[in-house]
Amino acid sequence: MRYELYYWPEIQGRGEFVRLALAEAGADYVDVARGSEKNGEGVPALLKLLNGETITTPPFAPPFLRAGKLLIGQSANILFYLGGRHKLAPASEAGRLWTHQLQLTVVDFIKEIHNTHHPIGSSLYYDEQKQAALRYTEKFHELRAPKFLGYFERVLERNPAGERYLVGRSLTYADLSMFQVVAGLRYAFPKAMRRWERKTPRLAELHDRVGARPRIAAYLTSERRIPFNESGIFRRYPELDK
Amino acid sequence: MRYELYYWPEIQGRGEFVRLALAEAGADYVDVARGSEKNGEGVPALLKLLNGETITTPPFAPPFLRAGKLLIGQSANILFYLGGRHKLAPASEAGRLWTHQLQLTVVDFIKEIHNTHHPIGSSLYYDEQKQAALRYTEKFHELRAPKFLGYFERVLERNPAGERYLVGRSLTYADLSMFQVVAGLRYAFPKAMRRWERKTPRLAELHDRVGARPRIAAYLTSERRIPFNESGIFRRYPELDK
Repeated sequence: MRYELYYWPEIQGRGEFVRLALAEAGADYVDVARGSEKNGEGVPALLKLLNGETITTPPFAPPFLRAGKLLIGQSANILFYLGGRHKLAPASEAGRLWTHQLQLTVVDFIKEIHNTHHPIGSSLYYDEQKQAALRYTEKFHELRAPKFLGYFERVLERNPAGERYLVGRSLTYADLSMFQVVAGLRYAFPKAMRRWERKTPRLAELHDRVGARPRIAAYLTSERRIPFNESGIFRRYPELDK
Repeated sequence: MRYELYYWPEIQGRGEFVRLALAEAGADYVDVARGSEKNGEGVPALLKLLNGETITTPPFAPPFLRAGKLLIGQSANILFYLGGRHKLAPASEAGRLWTHQLQLTVVDFIKEIHNTHHPIGSSLYYDEQKQAALRYTEKFHELRAPKFLGYFERVLERNPAGERYLVGRSLTYADLSMFQVVAGLRYAFPKAMRRWERKTPRLAELHDRVGARPRIAAYLTSERRIPFNESGIFRRYPELDK
């Protein structure tokens, strides 16, 4: 079965968590909105599903994944589905729930990271909410980022199967997502992240371990990997990095 | 099995979505932090699990649920678990994923609702971020609330099994959560919500249908239901209601 991933073509965004899982799974998939309109792909194909009036299970927003007859929205939900099919999560109920719990905490973190540059609303430009962004980010740096990063560091530290992965002794989609979070924070807040990482050595090691996996390494150097940029979740605005 | 729910004792908050599911399921549970310290309950019991250094699957924040050997965090993850056990979600994979997708969209909505009064950060008082809150809420009223409510109205409208529930022909935890969202918005933004509801009659009917279910009606009039207040997600600040 060939998966169809639908996500905005010019950013990593929330779609990247799914792209990383598909890459690690070696899954056959097409990144539809990055395709050509001539072939019925591109953004119009995404909008057709997003706004189609006959879809009985409409997604609220990208990313969404077509998997045979299923149309699955919400990045964490897509990962829950893929995790079960591609051994990117444990088979046991306890393991599946724990992995998903970690992913939902990543989602919470991602939302707060996004709000560092858009605390008032996505409909306004960054420059229109820069003062609020400065204030928000001050608290983010002081409290929230250290809290989230410290939490995930603790999860690695306490994993009864060892510190190599967040869950058990094998890679899960939560590790792939944590790779992306560390990479993104290094991009967006290089100065602050250097400081935070001193207290989270296990997360830094996890990032390197995931990035060195053959399929992930190949993905990262391919054209499938969109570079970080100032339209995504992780944006480098020097005034926000202290 | 007696469930143990851990959530802050003085607010509905994110714990309320779990409380509603437990009430509808007729499940045997104890709302631990609302119990007495003399009995080993109360907030100290919650903090012990939240901060305990020997917990190998630590929750990031309340709510979390103890179910036998499982310790499950993240409200949507708890509902996913309860849904499967108490027929509050379909049995099919497609139905379970769709219900969960809706719940994750509720979670996104809830986060934005919370940010109407705390756009800069939860560590600051409302009064310290009131100007930002006014600006945030203006966009929330103009764009986000109508978008989310319109989305869930559309989901009801398009349900092939009829407009009574969000998923299929039976109640799911997503319906219980939508009840809470409608009730909360009516509390927080009575003026604006009257306007929004004119365009979402199916959601209003869903709210009433859920609220009239015997177990939910009994729960709502019991002491187990904490009243809405200005410490929770849904806060009534007249200056934010336009």
